[in-house]
Amino acid sequence: MTNIAICAPATPITREQADALNELVAAEFPMHNVTFHDQCFELDGHFAGPDLRRLEALLECANDPAYDAVWFAKGGYGSNRIAEAAVAQMNTAARAKTYVGFSDAGYLLAALYRHGIGQSVHGSMPVSARSEGGREAVRRVLRWFAGDNSGLEPSVDGKTPVAAFNLITLSMIAGTPMMPDLSGHVVMVEEVSEHLYSIDRLFFNLAGSLPRVAGLRLGSVTNVPENYREFTQSPEEIAKFWCARAGIPYLGRAEIGHTSANRVVPFGLASPSKAS
Amino acid sequence: MTNIAICAPATPITREQADALNELVAAEFPMHNVTFHDQCFELDGHFAGPDLRRLEALLECANDPAYDAVWFAKGGYGSNRIAEAAVAQMNTAARAKTYVGFSDAGYLLAALYRHGIGQSVHGSMPVSARSEGGREAVRRVLRWFAGDNSGLEPSVDGKTPVAAFNLITLSMIAGTPMMPDLSGHVVMVEEVSEHLYSIDRLFFNLAGSLPRVAGLRLGSVTNVPENYREFTQSPEEIAKFWCARAGIPYLGRAEIGHTSANRVVPFGLASPSKAS
Repeated sequence: MTNIAICAPATPITREQADALNELVAAEFPMHNVTFHDQCFELDGHFAGPDLRRLEALLECANDPAYDAVWFAKGGYGSNRIAEAAVAQMNTAARAKTYVGFSDAGYLLAALYRHGIGQSVHGSMPVSARSEGGREAVRRVLRWFAGDNSGLEPSVDGKTPVAAFNLITLSMIAGTPMMPDLSGHVVMVEEVSEHLYSIDRLFFNLAGSLPRVAGLRLGSVTNVPENYREFTQSPEEIAKFWCARAGIPYLGRAEIGHTSANRVVPFGLASPSKAS
Repeated sequence: MTNIAICAPATPITREQADALNELVAAEFPMHNVTFHDQCFELDGHFAGPDLRRLEALLECANDPAYDAVWFAKGGYGSNRIAEAAVAQMNTAARAKTYVGFSDAGYLLAALYRHGIGQSVHGSMPVSARSEGGREAVRRVLRWFAGDNSGLEPSVDGKTPVAAFNLITLSMIAGTPMMPDLSGHVVMVEEVSEHLYSIDRLFFNLAGSLPRVAGLRLGSVTNVPENYREFTQSPEEIAKFWCARAGIPYLGRAEIGHTSANRVVPFGLASPSKAS
């Protein structure tokens, strides 16, 4: 039995999206119990409620010893606004938990990982449970909660610590007090809906600000907008160029990203869920 | 007589844009002499020539004692790729020069300022000389080259050091080896064509990574794309929010940005052009 609390530190989901996850869990994962915090469905401007409301919901989920894990409902934008306050207020129960999400949730995964709170995990989120492809991505997380590592990113070997981030999210974290020490890590990055020149610019930023990492892997780069002028370098050529300039070993692709192929990446040294 | 060399460290301009500047200078600023490097008109994919070609042209302009100033022809994207190599190869003549540009040229202004090379100046660029409004912005720079400070950003008082940047450019520089020490400075930022959530995210990054600056001023924020959901906070509300969180004095607006009102901001302590 894994008791999973779901909250939305950035943007809201719909009741229909929650229902789709509930149905999937009931049908295929009876060993899990998922609980959506009401805050998941609130809306305040861009966000799933004001900062304080999202912070409160996250802390209620994290600090409650009844839950084994906190699953972030959806990305979007906004978890950076509450991440530092959240980690500062987490209790002993929060420190024994697993936290799963990706994209904008990377701010929280980073802050938690920096402060050694629980197990940060890159993985797909409840919002994806309505589509056929998204459901398979969500199943990988639910299987991993059950101790089944088949949905792990294939390069994860349990020997070299790893971390996975959305590219712009990692770039925005770099230099702030929530940046974890990624030295010695294989860092995986993925991106969606950014121009290629912007991706080049983000790699420039990270090439100049990452510590001595063990290497970089490039996840999927999807939904790239057309620019008025072609960039001519592919995302992988861009990644290789900046890795070469920065002396970072480029280790190839990673199966992470804003696609249904998105795999699970437990930060640090890979392990089955502690909650299983 | 100010001898001004023009090169394009990011993206190219057209011959018509160069002609417009030449005509403006001939008609109204006979005390100046502007020389366009041929590289300004080259095209290689996204850029005004390959990295090495743009670097070579910039160094030819900067290291030639015949020129008093280097004026960057246009922004776009790309000067970050050559900025570190450029400052590493600059000679004594380069150290006595004035460098003018903004937007993407901010990477060069930052690297030059960090290394104490010449005088970095935020100002409009030759590419703008074809339109009525752009010409007035360009005139402010040409007047400043002539020792006329009437086009300076009004808050510049010669007592507190200042620097002006495009917001995302400064965010991408932060944490890299080309970031100047901006402690004690009034930092001005402007932005164009970014979503409001992206502007919020960039302020988050800078709030967590800037040193103890004297204050922040917000320039114009223009051409903001519509988002699928309204952000509800205005650019100035966003700036005030993050300044308050970070303990940075918010000092009000600055007349800088991607508009014809763009004013001149000499980095550090304001002064008329050394070349005048």
